[in-house]
Amino acid sequence: MNDTFLKACRGEEVPFTPVWIMRQAGRYLPEYREVRGKADFLTMCKTPELAAKVTLQPVDILNVDAAILFSDILIPCEAMGQGLEFQENRGPILDPVMRDKDTIDNLSVPDPEDKTKFVMDTIRLLRRELAERVPLIGFSGAPFTTATYMIEGGTSRNFMNTKRLIYETPMLYKSLMDKITATITEYLKAQISAGAQAVQIFDTWGGIFSPGDFREFALAYVIKIIDALKKWIKTENREHVPIIYFVGQTAGLLKEIRTSGADAFGVDWRINIDDAARGLGGDVVVQGNLDPLSMFLPHDKIEERVKDILGRASSARGHIFNLGHGVVPETPPENVIALVEMVHRLSGK
Amino acid sequence: MNDTFLKACRGEEVPFTPVWIMRQAGRYLPEYREVRGKADFLTMCKTPELAAKVTLQPVDILNVDAAILFSDILIPCEAMGQGLEFQENRGPILDPVMRDKDTIDNLSVPDPEDKTKFVMDTIRLLRRELAERVPLIGFSGAPFTTATYMIEGGTSRNFMNTKRLIYETPMLYKSLMDKITATITEYLKAQISAGAQAVQIFDTWGGIFSPGDFREFALAYVIKIIDALKKWIKTENREHVPIIYFVGQTAGLLKEIRTSGADAFGVDWRINIDDAARGLGGDVVVQGNLDPLSMFLPHDKIEERVKDILGRASSARGHIFNLGHGVVPETPPENVIALVEMVHRLSGK
Repeated sequence: MNDTFLKACRGEEVPFTPVWIMRQAGRYLPEYREVRGKADFLTMCKTPELAAKVTLQPVDILNVDAAILFSDILIPCEAMGQGLEFQENRGPILDPVMRDKDTIDNLSVPDPEDKTKFVMDTIRLLRRELAERVPLIGFSGAPFTTATYMIEGGTSRNFMNTKRLIYETPMLYKSLMDKITATITEYLKAQISAGAQAVQIFDTWGGIFSPGDFREFALAYVIKIIDALKKWIKTENREHVPIIYFVGQTAGLLKEIRTSGADAFGVDWRINIDDAARGLGGDVVVQGNLDPLSMFLPHDKIEERVKDILGRASSARGHIFNLGHGVVPETPPENVIALVEMVHRLSGK
Repeated sequence: MNDTFLKACRGEEVPFTPVWIMRQAGRYLPEYREVRGKADFLTMCKTPELAAKVTLQPVDILNVDAAILFSDILIPCEAMGQGLEFQENRGPILDPVMRDKDTIDNLSVPDPEDKTKFVMDTIRLLRRELAERVPLIGFSGAPFTTATYMIEGGTSRNFMNTKRLIYETPMLYKSLMDKITATITEYLKAQISAGAQAVQIFDTWGGIFSPGDFREFALAYVIKIIDALKKWIKTENREHVPIIYFVGQTAGLLKEIRTSGADAFGVDWRINIDDAARGLGGDVVVQGNLDPLSMFLPHDKIEERVKDILGRASSARGHIFNLGHGVVPETPPENVIALVEMVHRLSGK
């Protein structure tokens, strides 16, 4: 197996810098759009054959060093009892919004092999089909990022409803977060049991907080999950499963993020990755951090940036190359193919 | 005159920490909504009596230590020849979008006393009406932030069109930025000539860049403006007019921002203000940085945060208290009144 990704996650020596791309199974690929043309997004998530198919596409097309489960961070919200749909050009809609005690009390902490069996089936199918080519990454949203969607009912510009719930009725927020945290803990355990060889926790919106608020209202729950997963892995005598913690708008929160207990840290592009590694404590594994929109640059300019990031990241204990956020649908696929080739070539020993 | 704000901008000793609030003349105030009920937003900007009236409201109601001109950062875009309207609940719409050579070539660098005379008239009226109670702050958008609206045609989630123009046709972007930079330089000179006693340059979207891109595609033009203003002020033998540079998502760009030449630095809430001051070089004047949405907290919790920020900012050469971004329309005005009182009381010697 190409286990370069897993080795890098553990801070071990690697023959080249492994690379995968956030949202690598996505609309920028014509092969993905072909599948998507026949099934809506949620149907794709819930049909293991389709989800596995698009998960494998970037492994074949891009030559990345890890596959990541095709799914959505909002799948557990539906499993908890909130309505979920995806509307074309509008994004997710969750209903009813979680802003009062009765609605939050109605949420359950689901058994992941019951309510989200399709995810676990996809993982089992993928492990067979991948046949040890590259490792498979499972994932979930972090509790706070998940909560923003549940409280706002979708995406948001300034997360006012979320922050009002936190600031005006903190106990209500806590009761919601406790349920989400329990759900995600079980959800990630089930993914690992089904065969996920690493997991990434996406805190895409964690960076909308001041450092103090981030610690109290977002990070505290991530620490609980990572702690529970690590204890469970030990108790079960499982092999070490690396946990990657990605926070959007990372730059002001490094001192907080380093206490999460994660094995590797996803860094967005708004900070130089050497500064991020230093802020995270120096002796850490970082993942990132090319601006997804620099995929519109000519190849020679992309190559300059790849070199720059590889050079900066060499100060860290380990580095997994990635974009600083998901690849956008308008991206020319040939540029992403070229990017992966550049990372391999420029980092190869 | 209460010149505490100007003294703090210059890093001089002050009897208490001055405070003003970004978007202090705004929809959260019933007195503002009353004026706004009779005139649309652009009409208010273009009618000196109305603009002056709402500029003065927060000085009376909140007891802030500075007035800031009521206007909009997009006013110069219209003066350059781009259509501008504000639609209820949709934000600004600029037309045609600036993405090709002919459209950009059609833009002019306007004489600010001609095309934006109403702004200068508002400033002149305000200086008379303020009668030296508190200083008057003028402002503009930074060239990059202004350009995003001109290129996208309004607000944006990921600024793809802007970055594509930059990455795919850098010379076209430069020609647009050169015109915007010349326009804003003249616009700020005119504001100072009309009576603005300090100016703030808003780079609200500057933080969507990696540090390298920020330096090349945003900061370079701000440096030109600040340099030109400082030379002009000297040549004209004018009194020192402090320049405040505010960048949204400040945290990853501190090393770059410190080279701007500004007298004071606006810091958003996503970083602790002592860390920001350190990253900016330590011996600097900082402005900020309470999360605008913490205005929904109970007063005792707001007071804790004010204390925390005042304590942290005491390490800097100077501090002007502010929110980390504009106050939101849903904010209870009594909380903003309380905030100003707290800053004065807790920082008073």
